[in-house]
Order: sequence, then structure tokens, then C-alpha cells
Amino acid sequence: MDRVTLTPAATAVFATVLTRGPISRTEVSRVTGLSTAAVTKVVRPILAAGYLDELPVGRASAGSGRPAAPLAVRADREFFAGVWLRAGELVVVLADLRAGVRAAHRIPLPGTSVAAVVAAVARAVAVLGAPGALVRRVGVAVPGEVDRGSGIVRRGPYPGWRDVPLAALVREATGLPATVENDVRALTVAEQWFGEGAGTRSFALVTVGEGVGCGLVVNGALVEGGYGVAGEIGHVPVDDTGPRCHCGGRGCVEAIAAEPAVVARIRAATGRAALDLPGAVALARTGDRAALESFAAAGRAVGRGIAAMVNMFGPEKVVVTGDGVAVLEKDLRAAYGPQAFGAAGGCPLIVEPLPPESWARAAAAVTIMALIGLGPG
Amino acid sequence: MDRVTLTPAATAVFATVLTRGPISRTEVSRVTGLSTAAVTKVVRPILAAGYLDELPVGRASAGSGRPAAPLAVRADREFFAGVWLRAGELVVVLADLRAGVRAAHRIPLPGTSVAAVVAAVARAVAVLGAPGALVRRVGVAVPGEVDRGSGIVRRGPYPGWRDVPLAALVREATGLPATVENDVRALTVAEQWFGEGAGTRSFALVTVGEGVGCGLVVNGALVEGGYGVAGEIGHVPVDDTGPRCHCGGRGCVEAIAAEPAVVARIRAATGRAALDLPGAVALARTGDRAALESFAAAGRAVGRGIAAMVNMFGPEKVVVTGDGVAVLEKDLRAAYGPQAFGAAGGCPLIVEPLPPESWARAAAAVTIMALIGLGPG
Repeated sequence: MDRVTLTPAATAVFATVLTRGPISRTEVSRVTGLSTAAVTKVVRPILAAGYLDELPVGRASAGSGRPAAPLAVRADREFFAGVWLRAGELVVVLADLRAGVRAAHRIPLPGTSVAAVVAAVARAVAVLGAPGALVRRVGVAVPGEVDRGSGIVRRGPYPGWRDVPLAALVREATGLPATVENDVRALTVAEQWFGEGAGTRSFALVTVGEGVGCGLVVNGALVEGGYGVAGEIGHVPVDDTGPRCHCGGRGCVEAIAAEPAVVARIRAATGRAALDLPGAVALARTGDRAALESFAAAGRAVGRGIAAMVNMFGPEKVVVTGDGVAVLEKDLRAAYGPQAFGAAGGCPLIVEPLPPESWARAAAAVTIMALIGLGPG
Repeated sequence: MDRVTLTPAATAVFATVLTRGPISRTEVSRVTGLSTAAVTKVVRPILAAGYLDELPVGRASAGSGRPAAPLAVRADREFFAGVWLRAGELVVVLADLRAGVRAAHRIPLPGTSVAAVVAAVARAVAVLGAPGALVRRVGVAVPGEVDRGSGIVRRGPYPGWRDVPLAALVREATGLPATVENDVRALTVAEQWFGEGAGTRSFALVTVGEGVGCGLVVNGALVEGGYGVAGEIGHVPVDDTGPRCHCGGRGCVEAIAAEPAVVARIRAATGRAALDLPGAVALARTGDRAALESFAAAGRAVGRGIAAMVNMFGPEKVVVTGDGVAVLEKDLRAAYGPQAFGAAGGCPLIVEPLPPESWARAAAAVTIMALIGLGPG
């Protein structure tokens, strides 16, 4: 798309077709607020460059003799690598221009040094296709603190990672433009553009796993936080007599509901020091009282944390996700219901466990949006 | 300003001079993103209509031989009535175009019927000046649920008030354009444009009184909530074993920290059934243990609620206000500090008790912003 001039109007038009297509020029005009003449003018070069298809005309548009050929983004015009960095492995997908997953792989991480991880990312991208030919850009999602604008990982996810210029290193190793984003924010953007959040003005994504995180979209934009901190639902204090949290607070959602906290409570109650999360889930399924109580406490804490978030910012929808989220769902909803304030109780919670590939796809979504002029990188 | 064309550019320019003036055209151009030629063109008719002054030239602008005459809004070009509806009385101010308070009154409410209140508002406005001559518009701030767009009070503040078209009734009774807004939102807007929030992109105002409320500004815009609910910091659950709340939840900030809850705890502990809030404050000042503990619990709940809000939104600043807020300040800060997450701890809390006239001024600020094209009414 380098040859297509990405004016703000072009970005708005392309984003509209991408997320709402097939869609007529008239409808694009209505959504973007541009005149139909402006839309037609903007569409012409993007169409000529092969990024859009005109679909067969179904019927003449109402009130006009001219046919309304709907526009759709040509999914296979460009491909993208999405990479999620996690403990022990990379999760990698090949995504098309509509963020459709065409292939997925997992690649073991031989080490956690910056050099080892960057080399593994380059190998992962190479597996997907010849750089520059098939794959157009690389998106990386990182559990940790990321400065999206500069592509620098400020902190985490591996021991000793501080201020790593990951986007630049990946660019150098692959020869491709690269974006780096925090994984919860990436998944929020992916849901906002290509998932449950599409068409909303305000939207929240909550993830439950090793930690408890949240991405917030208000008035169509991701909330970044005046000091770089936002969406820390894991550190909403929901129980004044609850456990101490690693952050220094007391009764934080994360101190009660993160996987390590859930497992630790069951270990302490049962004496099974080697219990892991799958073991804990299995134990709960046998009806073990300590296991059930620990998951119930976690569900209740997450439910109260979500109510706090909904009461304060009133999203249209909330998606709740994470590996073990299905086990928490009943208690989570039972705690959320009575705590949501007034009309905010109308905000639906969509509980969906997403596979690890969703996080890699989210990394691809961020780099797709950057290609069309939404966000740096 | 009817004769000045309020294009979006004119609104942006006028708002910039209003909140940042005296300011040069060059600086207005930088802030608004408009060209200096566009700024000059927009300014001309507003200047001619007497809404702006060109201040004496201090010095030639750097790199140019032309003098840079700073622009300022002419405060006494228009006047506004601001009215706050509260129990038993109206608080009324006359505000100038820069939201400066020129006069203030309180008017007892003879009754709480819609007709009685509207008549009292009309009398209050008449006291300030001849309608149409001195006072240009009326702003009303209401503790209750307000649909700002239509000027309808959905609920409260007086018994039986449901779906009252208050803006239309005040317009009819005074012959002046009128705006109606929820009082916490109005105060948030006033602080955003004319107070501590000026120049920030994200900002929060927390009020502690009969209830505990919050107004949030994210990316420069008030958060409205997908279902009309937002800023309900009073219903953030901070104590899982805390008291039941009138909303149906448990351990909400409001159930612990609202004035009635604080007083009720002290009454129960001391057996003084007739104690009121001033009496409770006086008792705490004598060192009474039950009174101190009750205020401490309230401060702690508000501090934890603010930390929850800050961790999720990351505002640049938080203003905390309310009649009795000074008594809570120490415990509030002690609870907030350890609970604010990472860099969010850098967000300053500005604790300031505001006089009742501030709420009336806030009502005026909303109607000033409506005059210049920011918001309905």
C-alpha cells in the first residue's frame, strides 16, 4: 500500500471497508462522514492497487438507477506474521489482510536472551514464507510493559529484559517493518477491529491468567493512561481484608484471582505441594471442596473487579478471556450481577476462552492497522 | 455570538483563547492544528463582535518583524446565570464569559414541585439582572440523572421528579436559552475548562458528600457510558465483607464513605441518635474514638476507590472535593498511596473543599461551553 496515498480520509475509508465490508460507497460515506464524491475519489487508487474488490452488484440501490457494487478488502492482497512471546515458546500465525489466520505454528524458545528471542522470531517468520515476498510486516505481542510508539519493551517478559528496542531488532533480523505491542492491548485492538468490539464506541477486554489485565476503548480510542498505566483491573482492591498483593496493595483482584494465587490456596489446603493449574482444574472437577472454594473466590474477585470497571466507565460490551476462565464463569457472573450499578447492568459479559493463537493473531492485527495508518510502526 | 459563525474551527479557536488566553495567534495555531492564516481568518469576526481583545504588544515575536498581539476573551462581553438545585435552596451565581463569579446568592425553595422550583429559578435569574439584557443564558446543575442532550431530568433531586423537561421549562419561564446537567458532570466540565483540569487530556473529579461521585475526562472528552452510567466510583466494591449498599452490592465505597453512612456508624457507637454531620465532625475533633474510626474508614474506602479508578484510567490529575473532605484527607491519602499501581502513583490528588457556589459556577460553565458550540443546549 506504499503507493496508495494514506491521507486521513483514505485511512478512514479503508478501515471502514476492512471492518464492515462488504459495504457500499454510500454506506462508507455515512459511517465516515465524508461525501460520496470524496469516498469515490479515495477508493479509486486503493481499488487500482488491488487492495479492494468490487463485489457483484446484487440490486440497484434504493432511490437511484445506479448500481451499488459493494466494496470488500481483498484478503489475500497482503500477508502478515503475528508472533506472541510467551514462556518457553513463540506462538506464530500467518494472517491475511482481514486478520484471517491462514497458518499457525509454535516454536520452542532455546533461551530468553534478547539475541536468542530475536533469532527465533526471524526463524518463525521465515517458516511462514520468503521475507518480502509473502509476508509483508511482522507484529509482535509481548506480555510486559511496551512503549508502542518507539517499539521498545520497557520491562519483561523474560528475566533481565529492560528497554529492549525489539521492533528495531526484529526489523533488522527479518528485513520487514515491525510493530511491538503489549499483548493485552493487542488483543483489545484485535477485538475492537475484528471481533466483539467492532462497531462499538466503548469496549473492554479482561484477561485472566498469570495476571489479570484489561484493555479499555473509550470514544473509539484505546485508553493509554497519563503515566503509561491504564487497564490495571488486576490492581483494583476488592477486599479490604484480602491477601497482600505483590504490588504493595491489599485485596487486589490479582492477589486473589491470578492463577498462581488460586493454585497456592489449593496447595495450602490440600498439602499437595506439586499441584499445577491443570491439576487444580481437574481437582475442582472431582468436587474437591478446597479447589472449588479457591476457584469461587477467584471468580468472585474478577466479577467484582469487572463491576468496578463497568460502573466507572460504562462500556457497551465486555469480553472476558483466559485459559481457565470457563471454570470461573458461574461465580464471576454471580458476583458481577448484583454489583453492576443501575443501567450498567445491561452491559453484557461475553466469556470466551481464546486459544493461544488468538494472541498471535492480535499481534498481526496491530501491524495491519499500522499498515493502513492507524498507529505507529 | 449568534452573529459569529460557529464553524468547528471557530469553536476550537475560541475555546483555546478562553482557556489558555492571553495567547498569540501563532500559539492558537499550534494548539488547534489550524494554519495561522486560518486562525487569523476565524478570529476577525469574533474580534469585530467584541468577544475578544487584542492586548498591548509586549515584544516582537521571535524570527519575525511583525508584532504578536496576544488575544484574550473579553470577560464582560456576556453574562450567565448558574443555578445549583439542592435540598431547601438554590445556589445562584452571575458568571462572566470567563466563568468568573461576579455575584452570588442563595434563594430558599418554598417547595419541591416542578412548578415551584422553576418559578424559583426564574426569580433567581431575575435578581441577577433584566433577562435578555445582562444575563444571556441560564445553566442549571442538578444532583440526579440528567439527559444533557434533551435537557430532561430523568430522576431526582426532589421527591417524585421523573422525566422533567427542565431545560424547556426554564427557557419558557426566563425567556433565555438554558442547559441542564448533572452536577458532578458540570463540576468536572468546569474544572476541565477553567480549573485544575485545564490543559490535561485526561482528568478525574471525585466528590464526597451525601453520595460519592466521579466525573472522568479521557482523551479530552467526558466519559458518558454506553448505558448512560459512568463515573460511579461510589459503587466500586472495595470491601468484600463490608456493609450492604442501597444499590444491592456489598462493600461499595458509598456504603462506607457517604455522609449518612459515616454519621450512622458514630450514632450506633455513641448512642447519640440525633447526631448530624457537623456534630460528627466536632466529635472527631475532640478525639472521640468512634468518630475518628468512622471517618478513617470513610477516608480509607474513598482512597481505595480512587486507586481503583486511577489504576484503570490513568488520569493525569485527580481533584477530590466535598464538604467534609478535609477530615478524610489523611486516611484517604494513606490508603491511596500503596494501592496506586506503579507509575500511576505519580498521579497527584488535589484535595480541595469547594464552596457551594462552585457548583453554581459549574452550571454557568456548562452553558458558556454550549454558547461557543461545545455541547447541546
